[in-house]
Amino acid sequence: MPRPVIGVFDSGFGGLTVLKGLLEVIPDAEYLYFGDTARLPYGSKSVETVARYACEAARFLEQQGAELLVIACNTATALALEQIRAAASVKVLGVIEPGAQRAAAASRSRRVVVIGTEATISSHAYQKALAALQIESLEKACPLLVPLVEEGWVEHAVTEQVAKLYLGEAFSDGFGSADVLLLGCTHYPLLKPILHRVVPENVRLVDSAESVALAVQNLVSAGTAEVSRLSKAPQQERIGAAHARFFVTDSVEKFRRLGARFLGQEIRDITHVDLKE
Amino acid sequence: MPRPVIGVFDSGFGGLTVLKGLLEVIPDAEYLYFGDTARLPYGSKSVETVARYACEAARFLEQQGAELLVIACNTATALALEQIRAAASVKVLGVIEPGAQRAAAASRSRRVVVIGTEATISSHAYQKALAALQIESLEKACPLLVPLVEEGWVEHAVTEQVAKLYLGEAFSDGFGSADVLLLGCTHYPLLKPILHRVVPENVRLVDSAESVALAVQNLVSAGTAEVSRLSKAPQQERIGAAHARFFVTDSVEKFRRLGARFLGQEIRDITHVDLKE
Repeated sequence: MPRPVIGVFDSGFGGLTVLKGLLEVIPDAEYLYFGDTARLPYGSKSVETVARYACEAARFLEQQGAELLVIACNTATALALEQIRAAASVKVLGVIEPGAQRAAAASRSRRVVVIGTEATISSHAYQKALAALQIESLEKACPLLVPLVEEGWVEHAVTEQVAKLYLGEAFSDGFGSADVLLLGCTHYPLLKPILHRVVPENVRLVDSAESVALAVQNLVSAGTAEVSRLSKAPQQERIGAAHARFFVTDSVEKFRRLGARFLGQEIRDITHVDLKE
Repeated sequence: MPRPVIGVFDSGFGGLTVLKGLLEVIPDAEYLYFGDTARLPYGSKSVETVARYACEAARFLEQQGAELLVIACNTATALALEQIRAAASVKVLGVIEPGAQRAAAASRSRRVVVIGTEATISSHAYQKALAALQIESLEKACPLLVPLVEEGWVEHAVTEQVAKLYLGEAFSDGFGSADVLLLGCTHYPLLKPILHRVVPENVRLVDSAESVALAVQNLVSAGTAEVSRLSKAPQQERIGAAHARFFVTDSVEKFRRLGARFLGQEIRDITHVDLKE
């Protein structure tokens, strides 16, 4: 019986933190990762543009054989989840719902601060998802954190200063009682040490990358029709490292180099693709 | 007699500093500005991707009636000028040659520091252009300066600290005698006050945006075949403000809002276009 195939999509590199989480909880699947690196970042772009790009990516992953799609990009989830679902014929999971659920479970004060890109925050997708769980939230766009991570300044004084400026504002203004910081961008897990230092001591960090991996695992354990083979595969066939193939729209070399930082291991089997939109 | 039509192309907003320079020196032309905002930034992308996008933009501007094309983007000039020239049937001017010439004229020590995006610097286009003018150069990629400008932090302590880190490295290492800083990215003119403060006192800033405007003016004065109407138009027909139309691939509203910062005046007449690549 062939391995089940999970498609993971992001605008570029950040989704690799989601793939890292998936590899930990479901190591026996086959993964197809699509990074739209020629058109990144999505975080500063409009709904129409992000939706068009994301639907093209979803169709590509399905053509490659994906049986379940994970939208490992907060901006694409926030702006285009319904359009992607309409464009795809397999089950589609976004990062926002699982992140919001995990934050709600972690908060005692029922107040959560959410950080993300300009587009994610402007969409208020997290605020709506949290409100449905009776959680009050304050959303703060942090546009410089992605470029700082991509510059490799993940433990740098400048990054700490920028994070302090963004989060100082967020945790003031009557939101001092918030006890969860929800990382609404898949680049941010790399900044966890700095973020821990700049938020009040009692604040827990909830990482949407981890949350979605657990949501996929639940789906697999529940054995839904679409991904039933994941749970039905006999134990002896699950042995061995997961296999992952990568597709990118810009330079393969750059993806190999930068991507390793996000995935925490070497990246092989990268193919350049041209989406002729 | 109709006004001559100059097409100006950039990945997004930075080219507006070039347009600003052009409006000052040739106020009587008609301008068509194309900002590829859905696919910005180009500065972190590969030669192939940037060349493909830039050629599409050049063709679009020609279809709209441009009689001369100004590539107001250092990355596109550095990576794809020859390909754009091959794709276009009108005269094409880039920013690098004019910038290098102006820097060479301004330097007494014959040593110049060049800053730009990762892609521009990796191409060594400035180093080659300057070497041809017997100028020794040190090139330094400054990937965070564009996001800092786009965050609006043009007079911010963090930006000054980042600039100090980048330029401190550049002006050390035996390059302390450099007396010109060449701004090899059209976003950087907005950072002139900060850049002045962080470089040695005797260092002059040369701005590729201004330089290309002067190069276009020279071309016009010389009355080359392609743009002869520019210089032949009788004086009385030159009266009145220049007319500019703008085409963008992402949100019109965002371009209006952010763009005004770069152009230094309100932007009207913006059309959204979809380049079906």
